[in-house]
Amino acid sequence: MIFKQLLEQDSCTYTYLLGCEETGKSVLIDPVVETVHRDLDVIRSLGLTPTYTLETHVHADHISSGVKMRALADTQIVVPKIENLPCADLGVEEGTVFEVGNIKIHPLFTPGHTGSHHAYLIENGMHTILFSGDALLIEACGRTDFQEGNPAQLYKSIQDKFFSLPDETLVYPGHDYEGRQITTILQEKQRNPRLMNNKSEADFIEIMNGLDLPYPRKIDFAVPANQLCGQCPDNIPEEYNGPCEIIYGDMKNYRKHGDQG
Amino acid sequence: MIFKQLLEQDSCTYTYLLGCEETGKSVLIDPVVETVHRDLDVIRSLGLTPTYTLETHVHADHISSGVKMRALADTQIVVPKIENLPCADLGVEEGTVFEVGNIKIHPLFTPGHTGSHHAYLIENGMHTILFSGDALLIEACGRTDFQEGNPAQLYKSIQDKFFSLPDETLVYPGHDYEGRQITTILQEKQRNPRLMNNKSEADFIEIMNGLDLPYPRKIDFAVPANQLCGQCPDNIPEEYNGPCEIIYGDMKNYRKHGDQG
Repeated sequence: MIFKQLLEQDSCTYTYLLGCEETGKSVLIDPVVETVHRDLDVIRSLGLTPTYTLETHVHADHISSGVKMRALADTQIVVPKIENLPCADLGVEEGTVFEVGNIKIHPLFTPGHTGSHHAYLIENGMHTILFSGDALLIEACGRTDFQEGNPAQLYKSIQDKFFSLPDETLVYPGHDYEGRQITTILQEKQRNPRLMNNKSEADFIEIMNGLDLPYPRKIDFAVPANQLCGQCPDNIPEEYNGPCEIIYGDMKNYRKHGDQG
Repeated sequence: MIFKQLLEQDSCTYTYLLGCEETGKSVLIDPVVETVHRDLDVIRSLGLTPTYTLETHVHADHISSGVKMRALADTQIVVPKIENLPCADLGVEEGTVFEVGNIKIHPLFTPGHTGSHHAYLIENGMHTILFSGDALLIEACGRTDFQEGNPAQLYKSIQDKFFSLPDETLVYPGHDYEGRQITTILQEKQRNPRLMNNKSEADFIEIMNGLDLPYPRKIDFAVPANQLCGQCPDNIPEEYNGPCEIIYGDMKNYRKHGDQG
């Protein structure tokens, strides 16, 4: 299997590329509109076909590249089924394996950051590998104060779905704001300040409700955009319009040239 | 492949267990005398046979369990060939794959922390995996002021042998003193204060020569012991004698009972 961990710098979002060497099929987990061209270049430079984009949840901090990727490269948009997004091509749910060529992806329903958040698990050689989305970050976790966020639910998702995995499970988070790339289940049990020392649900709820975080700078246009699988909305502020303009503006040229390379 | 990351708490040493599912053969990288019984229990509980112990270098901070493991479970002691240790059963060197059942281990000659340090590389599914020994730690590296340590050599080992690996390469260090389990090549390029921002050899040498570290508390008996593959020496201070006494004292019983379970 081919694997790349790709960073979108403005929102510190990690996009993960998984590619099946036998079939050439690929999936991008949580791709970002700003980096759609970079991601297509990476996929093609590795000899892979852009096949799917797969979301962990409706993001509030960046716009997905789902519809742009589909327009540019005929990918299919895959989202958690319970989100009921008409813009999506396929839905995934826990209990049903999503296959990308020979890669078997196990969705895990892990609400709490949002009401319909899913993480994705694969088995690869000596490791179980978790793409934890925003449900679990390195020494942190996603906030729980928007989008049907619920700290009690997030605590349960982490304890039941993640902390029951083997200690050595590799955890690739949806974001990191300090350049860290990876953690493990054991490391988060021992070092995550919101969970370490067997913190109770009550402890966790108190911590989450006391975070006093600023209002998310992109939420007012990112959530509506992502409910349309990344269609840039009309109300996007000028300072964030760049990526949408750039992408729509040069889409024609990109298709012509980009699809040849 | 079966994999376990095991901690010896007194020296914060990570011992790595790799097991071949097809043949049952196993190798312990850098096992520690204090945890020889724990490690044997783990190996056997996973249905594996204790087969090899493999050292990255002659350690100064703990005593290897090589000879104890061999006495208890008939394992073979494997060390870097250039160490010329008469106590060892096999030597490894860069350029020659060391096979443990179907597991292929690539030794990398990486001097600098000690004159004969080797790291070990395996390919597993979507990852290249580096067991970096003490040549590269998480946001740190092994000291270079004893045992033919040489900061210029260590800089070259890290740059040439490690930083030429793919960014996503998983790095399992020989120690961590803060409970961290894993890093990647990209993370160390970006966050290791001794290497980040493309530090030059001169920068690195200045940092290493300015560390002003205390004298290693076990070096006077650990190095002679490890030159005998972990044979506890006569000059071991009483406060550190426990593990050696315990192991020699109950070896007979352990063999009798332990080998049945």
